[in-house]
Amino acid sequence: MTSQHSDQLVNPAILDQVHGWRDYAEAKLGFRNHWYPIIKSSEVEEGKPVTAMLCGEPLLFNRIDGVVHCVRDRCLHRGVKFSRKVECHTKATLTCWYHGYTYRWDDGKLVDIIAAPNSRVTNGKRAVRSFATEEAQGLVFVYMGDRNGEIPPLSRDVPPGFLDADKHFIPRTQVVNSNWRHGVENGFDTTHIYIHRESRLVQENNMVLPLGFAPSETKSFELCEIGEGGPVGIVETYGPHVVPAFEGVIEGEVALRVSSDMEGKVVLPHTISMWVPCALKVDPWPAPHTTQIEFYVPIDATRHLYVQTLGTAASTEEEKRAFTHEYNNRWLHYALDDFNGPDIWAREAAEEGYADDQQWVDEALFEADANIIAFRRLISDRNGGVQRPSDLRG
Amino acid sequence: MTSQHSDQLVNPAILDQVHGWRDYAEAKLGFRNHWYPIIKSSEVEEGKPVTAMLCGEPLLFNRIDGVVHCVRDRCLHRGVKFSRKVECHTKATLTCWYHGYTYRWDDGKLVDIIAAPNSRVTNGKRAVRSFATEEAQGLVFVYMGDRNGEIPPLSRDVPPGFLDADKHFIPRTQVVNSNWRHGVENGFDTTHIYIHRESRLVQENNMVLPLGFAPSETKSFELCEIGEGGPVGIVETYGPHVVPAFEGVIEGEVALRVSSDMEGKVVLPHTISMWVPCALKVDPWPAPHTTQIEFYVPIDATRHLYVQTLGTAASTEEEKRAFTHEYNNRWLHYALDDFNGPDIWAREAAEEGYADDQQWVDEALFEADANIIAFRRLISDRNGGVQRPSDLRG
Amino acid sequence: MTSQHSDQLVNPAILDQVHGWRDYAEAKLGFRNHWYPIIKSSEVEEGKPVTAMLCGEPLLFNRIDGVVHCVRDRCLHRGVKFSRKVECHTKATLTCWYHGYTYRWDDGKLVDIIAAPNSRVTNGKRAVRSFATEEAQGLVFVYMGDRNGEIPPLSRDVPPGFLDADKHFIPRTQVVNSNWRHGVENGFDTTHIYIHRESRLVQENNMVLPLGFAPSETKSFELCEIGEGGPVGIVETYGPHVVPAFEGVIEGEVALRVSSDMEGKVVLPHTISMWVPCALKVDPWPAPHTTQIEFYVPIDATRHLYVQTLGTAASTEEEKRAFTHEYNNRWLHYALDDFNGPDIWAREAAEEGYADDQQWVDEALFEADANIIAFRRLISDRNGGVQRPSDLRG
Repeated sequence: MTSQHSDQLVNPAILDQVHGWRDYAEAKLGFRNHWYPIIKSSEVEEGKPVTAMLCGEPLLFNRIDGVVHCVRDRCLHRGVKFSRKVECHTKATLTCWYHGYTYRWDDGKLVDIIAAPNSRVTNGKRAVRSFATEEAQGLVFVYMGDRNGEIPPLSRDVPPGFLDADKHFIPRTQVVNSNWRHGVENGFDTTHIYIHRESRLVQENNMVLPLGFAPSETKSFELCEIGEGGPVGIVETYGPHVVPAFEGVIEGEVALRVSSDMEGKVVLPHTISMWVPCALKVDPWPAPHTTQIEFYVPIDATRHLYVQTLGTAASTEEEKRAFTHEYNNRWLHYALDDFNGPDIWAREAAEEGYADDQQWVDEALFEADANIIAFRRLISDRNGGVQRPSDLRG
Repeated sequence: MTSQHSDQLVNPAILDQVHGWRDYAEAKLGFRNHWYPIIKSSEVEEGKPVTAMLCGEPLLFNRIDGVVHCVRDRCLHRGVKFSRKVECHTKATLTCWYHGYTYRWDDGKLVDIIAAPNSRVTNGKRAVRSFATEEAQGLVFVYMGDRNGEIPPLSRDVPPGFLDADKHFIPRTQVVNSNWRHGVENGFDTTHIYIHRESRLVQENNMVLPLGFAPSETKSFELCEIGEGGPVGIVETYGPHVVPAFEGVIEGEVALRVSSDMEGKVVLPHTISMWVPCALKVDPWPAPHTTQIEFYVPIDATRHLYVQTLGTAASTEEEKRAFTHEYNNRWLHYALDDFNGPDIWAREAAEEGYADDQQWVDEALFEADANIIAFRRLISDRNGGVQRPSDLRG
Repeated sequence: MTSQHSDQLVNPAILDQVHGWRDYAEAKLGFRNHWYPIIKSSEVEEGKPVTAMLCGEPLLFNRIDGVVHCVRDRCLHRGVKFSRKVECHTKATLTCWYHGYTYRWDDGKLVDIIAAPNSRVTNGKRAVRSFATEEAQGLVFVYMGDRNGEIPPLSRDVPPGFLDADKHFIPRTQVVNSNWRHGVENGFDTTHIYIHRESRLVQENNMVLPLGFAPSETKSFELCEIGEGGPVGIVETYGPHVVPAFEGVIEGEVALRVSSDMEGKVVLPHTISMWVPCALKVDPWPAPHTTQIEFYVPIDATRHLYVQTLGTAASTEEEKRAFTHEYNNRWLHYALDDFNGPDIWAREAAEEGYADDQQWVDEALFEADANIIAFRRLISDRNGGVQRPSDLRG
């Protein structure tokens, strides 16, 4: 790798061929200066540090007096991972197992070196990178931000409604072996329902799902910005704009068919929307009283954390318990596992297709992909910076 | 990898140091615009698609009404492999599992998108790459050719005699973990018989095999071109030109010895010949009435398909059955397995030796390698184009 | 990789940022023209060739009439490894299994080709690389030198005392998954004792070990050169120059503590010293009458051979037997296994930290690392040449 290219993960000759979404094509590791959910709240227990990776950055989490803290999992001295043998000799600090470099959990400041008392290095000017965190709906969000940058509210980076006090969302996380963008594009893709045509969710829950939609001349989506400094996304309402197809026609003959009998059936969702940086909202889904919000969180160049959340209106503990019961006994199996299972291997198949980035140039998109292109352009215009290898140090 | 080199698999600084066979040194993925046998006919059953890889290209085969068709195993839309979940909703077409992009098996044309009826994309101008196929002697040959290029007859790319109507060849295929060129050079190498000196084929079948041959001043091979547009190769008849060595002499002392008693023994073969692009003919072998023809077919940069065929004169079904019986009971074990077994690991050892391509410059060849050099020059002069990464798309 | 950089394992942009020890930063494969111990004498038995790798070079050893010989494990002809199937048809020679290229073990000269008697190639001008060897203290040392270069005495490249006739050292070897420099820096690191604070060696053998040392203004080490052409190293005598720390203080509070009771305790070592190219001497250690000498020998870019030797004054066979008994029953377990075990995973953790070489620029060293920097500078000044990929051929 020659020096002038050492900070680029994608061949610039490819980037030069995409139009209007160069940043997105380059963002293998995601975008900086955004909030991402990367671990469940229940996984970060008081005084028990745990690791995760976000946008290529190895992270170490700890909960102290109920508050989650997060630092880069790498000692300044020799670059070793704290997590090889975590040492916390006081509640507020983290000590490297190698020479005793000791850092504060809250701001990352290097305060002492146990093997070298009074070292000049502990002059208060050095700190391991620490990251702002916030908890919501059972998830720990991390702000993958520049040092000393201003931190926007979490509400900017999640879909509208996700933080509402009268909504209760239940989270679930899975590592998927594909780049995060294949999660985005699979989720926001209105015609990939073709792969769900034999889903038990549909067959056993009184639902109707076509094979696809005949393209129309009407644009079915629009850019949506929620207030000043609120979330920005693309909202797709294809329903009124397209004709559902229940028959698959090949060279003029009907070759396959799904039921189009809508009598007494549930036809969902009404809208799907994709929000910067990586959240999808399907509303309502899979039932008229529930909403699915998903995040496709960059782990590294070839993996993302698939965060599914299912929510409903629930204010009291009793309502939340009732919904948890419904979730565990019905939707976890039918919607999150069975319906979305094929999506996971579809993303992994796309990872193979785009492995050398050439497919970003060669892809043969069709009319229904227009909303995806709109999101590529939107996020290329409204991101906080491409995450680059050089961001993983310094 | 910088942009100007992205289509080169071999360091140009190395290519600049080989003389007269630059194309061959670069052809890690083989040569384009040639026919290759890549799967046995019996493995492609009616209506049951199967995969193979040829020259780095993932292929999908299907037999329809007895005819074998072959397309690139990659949907134009998202680059995913059809073979992840093959769908054929009509006999003549292949449908991608993701959005229902549907292609004709015969010409690759995109005819319908099931999830998007009447899409403008199905205007008849798009097609997945399809490849001409032909069957002969129990093998499916694929023409790895340029789009819209003229297709030469299969007879140009196989050794003379292989297609004769009165000959019956029985094929066998194995994946070997070496570049295809180490197959070529091992097969056409007259002195690698040193590794076969303890072969049971020789010991138990009344044969004589020396340890090697003393070099002579006479050239023992010549370029051979069979008619207009027929196969071209190098034919080696070392027998009359060299003195067989039955003793191994080290610093003046005889250190090892094999039997040189020719009384009533079979001395074979009379000629070995190497044909563009990758076929060896050993004639007669391993018996006076049989011929072995082998192909070293590029799978990718580090693997080849080792296709052995053993043939004899046989026109009637009864003659073919008799030869099949002889093959199964004698030659399969003695010749194909036992005798050629060491060749397989010799090629894998050569793969390690040439792994970084530097050995193409550093190799210390000797007199007996002259026929190999002649073939390197011939094929560099008479190939249809080096297969490059850019050929795997578009 | 472009041609002009093909011989560099480290990005030149990184090398340009290190000051005074560029050679060391580049020496991923170690330094040429030095002696290294790479296999135990007991592992090279008469007439039984064995392999090892040194500085990226595959080696083949044989003992003939008691003398150890060493050649590159790669035939000149096709680059294959002799060791795939070793053939020695005479006591003094090695024959390649492929075509019978036959070389002398002592000087590597190609003397005969069995498959091609009287080949012009065996004109006496070709030779496989052979390497000088010497045995000492139960180890086979190899001189990884330039062809035709002058060979210095082994004594130049081992710590003083190691070759003394009245000293007996017992060797032990282990492959460690880190670059050799992390062995050097871990071994010569005076404050990494922090990781040994719970060692059973210290707790059960009447020893005292602090957590670290408070930095002092006095330099505690000096360059040491033993006579003309003798070993050169950095000798560290931190004892008198620093204040041991038995308490770990974090933000003003004592957070951990080890025993500082020296009453009747053994306080060791007195000096630790690091010698070009890769040997550490800890003296005395782990007992007042023993010395530990270790070598961190480059295997390849990501592995080193950790050679521990423990020695004492012993001239007679009885004294040697007595020390061997003591070694087996006490020090092997307490010192070599238990005490040094954490060092092995510390080096592997450092390998991860320095994996892309960037940490050589980013590392946050402190006062106690000054002796390590001194060694980096010394060896950058006094080495026989950086081992580069091009050295592995020709």
